[in-house]
Amino acid sequence: MTKTISKIIRRRHKIASKAGMAPGTVAYVGSKRDFKVTAEIFSYNETELIHKENLNPLTIKDDYKPDEVKWINIDGIHDTEVIEYIGKTFCLHSLAMEDIAHAEQRPKLDDYEDYVYLVVKMIDYNEQTKEITTEQLSVIFRNNTLITFIEDKGDLFNGLRDRIKKGNIKIRKSGADYLLYSMLDIIVDNYFLVLEKIGDKLEEVEIRLLGEPMKSDVNALHGLKRELIFLRKIIWPMRDVIGLMTKADHKNILPNTQLYLRDVYDHCVQAIDTVETFRDLTSGLMDLYLSSLSNKMNLVMKTLTVISTIFIPLTFIVGVYGMNFEFMPELHSVYAYPLVWAFMISITAAMLVYFKKKEWF
Amino acid sequence: MTKTISKIIRRRHKIASKAGMAPGTVAYVGSKRDFKVTAEIFSYNETELIHKENLNPLTIKDDYKPDEVKWINIDGIHDTEVIEYIGKTFCLHSLAMEDIAHAEQRPKLDDYEDYVYLVVKMIDYNEQTKEITTEQLSVIFRNNTLITFIEDKGDLFNGLRDRIKKGNIKIRKSGADYLLYSMLDIIVDNYFLVLEKIGDKLEEVEIRLLGEPMKSDVNALHGLKRELIFLRKIIWPMRDVIGLMTKADHKNILPNTQLYLRDVYDHCVQAIDTVETFRDLTSGLMDLYLSSLSNKMNLVMKTLTVISTIFIPLTFIVGVYGMNFEFMPELHSVYAYPLVWAFMISITAAMLVYFKKKEWF
Amino acid sequence: MTKTISKIIRRRHKIASKAGMAPGTVAYVGSKRDFKVTAEIFSYNETELIHKENLNPLTIKDDYKPDEVKWINIDGIHDTEVIEYIGKTFCLHSLAMEDIAHAEQRPKLDDYEDYVYLVVKMIDYNEQTKEITTEQLSVIFRNNTLITFIEDKGDLFNGLRDRIKKGNIKIRKSGADYLLYSMLDIIVDNYFLVLEKIGDKLEEVEIRLLGEPMKSDVNALHGLKRELIFLRKIIWPMRDVIGLMTKADHKNILPNTQLYLRDVYDHCVQAIDTVETFRDLTSGLMDLYLSSLSNKMNLVMKTLTVISTIFIPLTFIVGVYGMNFEFMPELHSVYAYPLVWAFMISITAAMLVYFKKKEWF
Amino acid sequence: MTKTISKIIRRRHKIASKAGMAPGTVAYVGSKRDFKVTAEIFSYNETELIHKENLNPLTIKDDYKPDEVKWINIDGIHDTEVIEYIGKTFCLHSLAMEDIAHAEQRPKLDDYEDYVYLVVKMIDYNEQTKEITTEQLSVIFRNNTLITFIEDKGDLFNGLRDRIKKGNIKIRKSGADYLLYSMLDIIVDNYFLVLEKIGDKLEEVEIRLLGEPMKSDVNALHGLKRELIFLRKIIWPMRDVIGLMTKADHKNILPNTQLYLRDVYDHCVQAIDTVETFRDLTSGLMDLYLSSLSNKMNLVMKTLTVISTIFIPLTFIVGVYGMNFEFMPELHSVYAYPLVWAFMISITAAMLVYFKKKEWF
Amino acid sequence: MTKTISKIIRRRHKIASKAGMAPGTVAYVGSKRDFKVTAEIFSYNETELIHKENLNPLTIKDDYKPDEVKWINIDGIHDTEVIEYIGKTFCLHSLAMEDIAHAEQRPKLDDYEDYVYLVVKMIDYNEQTKEITTEQLSVIFRNNTLITFIEDKGDLFNGLRDRIKKGNIKIRKSGADYLLYSMLDIIVDNYFLVLEKIGDKLEEVEIRLLGEPMKSDVNALHGLKRELIFLRKIIWPMRDVIGLMTKADHKNILPNTQLYLRDVYDHCVQAIDTVETFRDLTSGLMDLYLSSLSNKMNLVMKTLTVISTIFIPLTFIVGVYGMNFEFMPELHSVYAYPLVWAFMISITAAMLVYFKKKEWF
Repeated sequence: MTKTISKIIRRRHKIASKAGMAPGTVAYVGSKRDFKVTAEIFSYNETELIHKENLNPLTIKDDYKPDEVKWINIDGIHDTEVIEYIGKTFCLHSLAMEDIAHAEQRPKLDDYEDYVYLVVKMIDYNEQTKEITTEQLSVIFRNNTLITFIEDKGDLFNGLRDRIKKGNIKIRKSGADYLLYSMLDIIVDNYFLVLEKIGDKLEEVEIRLLGEPMKSDVNALHGLKRELIFLRKIIWPMRDVIGLMTKADHKNILPNTQLYLRDVYDHCVQAIDTVETFRDLTSGLMDLYLSSLSNKMNLVMKTLTVISTIFIPLTFIVGVYGMNFEFMPELHSVYAYPLVWAFMISITAAMLVYFKKKEWF
Repeated sequence: MTKTISKIIRRRHKIASKAGMAPGTVAYVGSKRDFKVTAEIFSYNETELIHKENLNPLTIKDDYKPDEVKWINIDGIHDTEVIEYIGKTFCLHSLAMEDIAHAEQRPKLDDYEDYVYLVVKMIDYNEQTKEITTEQLSVIFRNNTLITFIEDKGDLFNGLRDRIKKGNIKIRKSGADYLLYSMLDIIVDNYFLVLEKIGDKLEEVEIRLLGEPMKSDVNALHGLKRELIFLRKIIWPMRDVIGLMTKADHKNILPNTQLYLRDVYDHCVQAIDTVETFRDLTSGLMDLYLSSLSNKMNLVMKTLTVISTIFIPLTFIVGVYGMNFEFMPELHSVYAYPLVWAFMISITAAMLVYFKKKEWF
Repeated sequence: MTKTISKIIRRRHKIASKAGMAPGTVAYVGSKRDFKVTAEIFSYNETELIHKENLNPLTIKDDYKPDEVKWINIDGIHDTEVIEYIGKTFCLHSLAMEDIAHAEQRPKLDDYEDYVYLVVKMIDYNEQTKEITTEQLSVIFRNNTLITFIEDKGDLFNGLRDRIKKGNIKIRKSGADYLLYSMLDIIVDNYFLVLEKIGDKLEEVEIRLLGEPMKSDVNALHGLKRELIFLRKIIWPMRDVIGLMTKADHKNILPNTQLYLRDVYDHCVQAIDTVETFRDLTSGLMDLYLSSLSNKMNLVMKTLTVISTIFIPLTFIVGVYGMNFEFMPELHSVYAYPLVWAFMISITAAMLVYFKKKEWF
Repeated sequence: MTKTISKIIRRRHKIASKAGMAPGTVAYVGSKRDFKVTAEIFSYNETELIHKENLNPLTIKDDYKPDEVKWINIDGIHDTEVIEYIGKTFCLHSLAMEDIAHAEQRPKLDDYEDYVYLVVKMIDYNEQTKEITTEQLSVIFRNNTLITFIEDKGDLFNGLRDRIKKGNIKIRKSGADYLLYSMLDIIVDNYFLVLEKIGDKLEEVEIRLLGEPMKSDVNALHGLKRELIFLRKIIWPMRDVIGLMTKADHKNILPNTQLYLRDVYDHCVQAIDTVETFRDLTSGLMDLYLSSLSNKMNLVMKTLTVISTIFIPLTFIVGVYGMNFEFMPELHSVYAYPLVWAFMISITAAMLVYFKKKEWF
Repeated sequence: MTKTISKIIRRRHKIASKAGMAPGTVAYVGSKRDFKVTAEIFSYNETELIHKENLNPLTIKDDYKPDEVKWINIDGIHDTEVIEYIGKTFCLHSLAMEDIAHAEQRPKLDDYEDYVYLVVKMIDYNEQTKEITTEQLSVIFRNNTLITFIEDKGDLFNGLRDRIKKGNIKIRKSGADYLLYSMLDIIVDNYFLVLEKIGDKLEEVEIRLLGEPMKSDVNALHGLKRELIFLRKIIWPMRDVIGLMTKADHKNILPNTQLYLRDVYDHCVQAIDTVETFRDLTSGLMDLYLSSLSNKMNLVMKTLTVISTIFIPLTFIVGVYGMNFEFMPELHSVYAYPLVWAFMISITAAMLVYFKKKEWF
């Protein structure tokens, strides 16, 4: 239940562990990982395609050809040697290298004169653990080259790889800017998948809250609220990043691609809209739950009050005739007992009528 | 009750089903529909009018005449072949075609150099199901031609069609920009119809809450709240879209039409005002309901307390004289029984006076 | 109680009744009225004054004289013939005419090249019905002519009329811009009169809430909240309208009058401040009321608990000695009865001390 | 308790009493005062100083000397004759004169071409009445002359007067702009004195709320909340006024003085920060109070429940053996009585263990 | 617990003690301290390094050499003589001197033509007292010289000193702007350390609140809320200060350093994000706590109601047969006693079934 909060704290922890180092030091900040970092290279134009997998990243060279789009993908950012090698090979600023190795950043876009550095967050929904997972993607975009650094093995881009391999005309004809757009499009589309899951859970909680709410429902609601807080932290800056790309005037982003990016921007805004709507709904559901608790309390109290109000006076009456005084004339009358019963029955009837009128049961 | 939330989720679901496709692919996203897509064409100027209905959309040609306003209306967006045909015929961008086929968008305005693409939402109130229905309208505005794509059969424009046919001077004399304005005007006017329905419901709930609130009222209130959240999601971006049209400097929107659009913009702002006012009112009503629950609880507890406080001590007293001790001098006195009664009556009277003074009943 | 909300709904209703008409159609939208529409004309300069009342509006002509200020006041906007006649006479845009006939608008300022169209709301407090009344004022300001359209008979301008008639130098020397300013000044000053009434009611409610709150108080508070929501809807756009006038650069508004308008603008801001402060106060009072309800509940429960906790154990004790077992040695002791009393009294004393210490009474 | 709200209302009342007057009429608006209005004049340069007190304001002349700073202070604004005399003498705009006589304004800065008119609020804390007092200061700043109008006798400037008299070099060398800055600096510094008092009270309330809260504490909290609302209304516009002065480009404000004004502006921002922080704290304290009420209720209810749950069943048991049936075999057994006791004791013990485990006491 | 609030008040108090002084007077405002103020000087370039500690600050001279970075650090600001000496030596404005001596300021950046004055707040977490400590750092940045004033002995810069001494190439090659950036980087990194501590506490509280909440938890939550309010007051203006530095165009800040500052700015934004997220979480936790209180109350009330509803009617029944009427036929029947038991057992069973069905236990 408390995993989201610990995620935020863990994040902080890593940064904290860095506090004190000289700025500009390339040091891995993130969860412990030890798989071998590998590289993958696509270089293609309309007619040709070269695809190499499982390369040793330290063999990559900056062999830029203007008529070719090149996508270098590095899986894993925990090997600082690799990042430093790539950084040196492609003349990256030390700050960019530091940022690549830092898995706990806020989405941002840094414009270094001849290249652009981009951090975005991929999110996914793990069906097994019923949890949202996040992974960081760093992108260096220079001329017709795209270098991507992915935090962990496994990403959302297999469909994209297939499209390149199968010779999708649009992608093979366009430059690296279009490739970058395709990635962002996939990432933002995936936000909706995750939002849908949250929406499903929200609907379940709502149905239960409109019926007979239980304590577990409010805990679930609290969990959803935290997940939304968490998503908001990711999607809001994402919007700014894409907004910057649509406005900025990067020589390598063609006007046509800007049109496409504007479309991704619209989707991002829609995702934010949905997050905010869901937040509104959760706070409405919290109110509903609290009012439902009060309602149940009222019901319980009414039951108690009806029972007590009827039987406590009756118990008093029978108590009266249980007294042992020597001189109680009523005790000796033949009619006394039935009369007492009649009296008690009429009191009870009167009270029931009264409570009925007050709609207490 | 939970239909609004599922509507939002369904929306997401459709987008999700698209995640993974190559961007720019024209694919229908929306509820399943299978009626035959038809086209309708109006071409008119001040003196002439041609109106064709139930056309096969694949026969439409781009026969632009500068002195003629042309309105091509396509009913149904689930046939991608139609959209692709229209797109090719009128040289639309693939993104615009993709957006047309996507029934779950946020209102927006995209300016492609020689035409404008517009998405707006028509809302209506279904008297049978007591629900708000939404339908998406996509508009391509180029020169004197207006191409509209409507999600489902049935729209709000029958009055407009009549006006064109009956030769309304203003509309027959003006260009396609005025026709577009007329559509937006009708759509925004309809927002008020829906808001009025919500206002009616809100008033009913308020009257009940100021009287004797029940649990169903708070559920109704929650339903209204959700409908308002939903409307807000539609009307806010609508305002931006119209605002952009009034400011932007599209060669085909005449200054005079901008005046009219400004008027629609004012109405949009007024609709937003009303939504926000209603939201304020619902949260005020929620407070009212919660305070009324507490009040009722207080009333119930007072009843219980008054009854218990009076009868529990009396029951104790009669219990005392029900004890079977051999040596209880009081039991043998002739005056004991009436004295006990007198004592109990005076205690009760004192308590009643005390409670009266405290205004407990 | 529910009149404010119905006012908002009624407003919507009228607009709704128009949905479907061709835009630009002059149609009255507002409460049903059938008094005869009359006109009143002031034309004056420093030395001369002509005042005509109860004119037939259809006889008004556009006899503009540069050295004369002209104020044409039309009482009643439900006669579309009159509005169309005036519109034609003074060459007004059809949209302006449509707006004049529409009694349910948001304050706004439309700048048509050679004249300005202004909608503002006059509010007043009806001492009999204890309610806020609103009336719409439309103003056409062109050259030195001011045409005002008032929704109903009766306005706030009698003082102004007197000043003109009595030859107030400032007003007789200045142009129509100063006359317009004088009207706005009176209208905004009246907002404070209404706010004062609300403030008085708020103070009454507060005094009662700090003492012994009742359910009627929370209903009154809710009523005030709604009135504030309603006022806010009117005063916020009013500020924008006046702000536009101070900034805009209308050829007929002299710099000196702009100074005066800035002053009205300041008052408007102050009125908004007060509305917001009052809203803050009402929500503070709601909290106070809820906490006071909880306090009262605590008090009631403490009473019940003290009484029950003391007498229920005692009743058990006397019950014990009311049992009819043959072999209960205590029953036969001479000291048993007084000892039981002593025991019960000491238990009671101990409990009272305990409750006293806990400050339960 | 309700004085702050009545202050806001009184304020409104006075303005209301003016509604209907011709604009530009100099009429006193404020609390009734009838002391004699007096004037005080400082004129000084680096070497010379003339100080006159208790002057008749009607004898003041506009004897401007470029090499001399002149500070004319008028104590009292309820004598319209004085204001009109000063206004005529120094050629003030009628609006400025009207504003000076109006004690209930929002802080503002009006820039009349050759002079600046400034309204600010001095606040102070009255140790006797434990209340915040406010006083209005109007300033006319022209060339090297400063005319100040103070609502009541007694201001915050005695220290400043001493500094001038004792020949403080900085002040005697600088112009009227520095003098104005000195005043604003004193006024803003005093805001912190008042905020400190509120902070002290807030801390007292917090300590009590974290311990054993009482109803009086929530009333005190409500009082503090209102005082903060009131302060906010004063300090926010004050910030804007000073901000305008630092940015504006008044010929008589030297760049060096602008530096100083920026410093006052920073203090103003800090004061606003503190007000907002205090507001956050009060709402946190309100939550704390409400949760503490619920906690106490829980405690009370647990006590009642424990007592009732233990003794009500026991009372039933002893009631059973108090029945008078002829044939109840148990009654005749020698062991019955002790067995019943044993049974009751074991039930009680079991319940106590159960409640202990549930941590109910 | 209440230390944070008293910190804010103390802060105010000190400022208050200054109210009344002439502006521009250098007077220490802050907690009482009396250690001896010492100075420390670093002057270095790529090849050389001079480091002097524990100097008498009154011996410092302004021996500026263009090819050398100079860092003068003064520990302690309570000795006004030192500040005035430094001020005179380096030609600082009197306002800057006044601000340096004032330990209770809001982070700000003042741009005096030939130098920049900067106030920032260092925060740290004291592991012993479990409290956040703050210390003020004033920086004068002129040419290649950095003069820092630290409120108390002990700062966060020991790592930085080591880097300089050990001849870290980057720092030794860069100018004072890079040194300044390094300081800001360390300070902002430390914010995350403190936020991590708060996050840990928040997680502890959340775990307890999702389990069995106690009153101490809500007090802890309130404490965290206040700490967050306090941090927000510090970090928000810090962001503005750094933002100003990245944008401003100070001749001594090289473009490359601006890149680095932009990075610190990003971290600052991330810190604010975290504070806001934590605030959202605390208010969610408060809701959770309140709902959990209501839940517990419901549970207690259900127990009471079940017990009372079962036993009160039974007690009434046994009371009936405890009456002493002479003529009660039932008393003499052999079957009466077992029949009464059977009746009572069946009532009880029915009730238990009813409560079970209602899920009351």
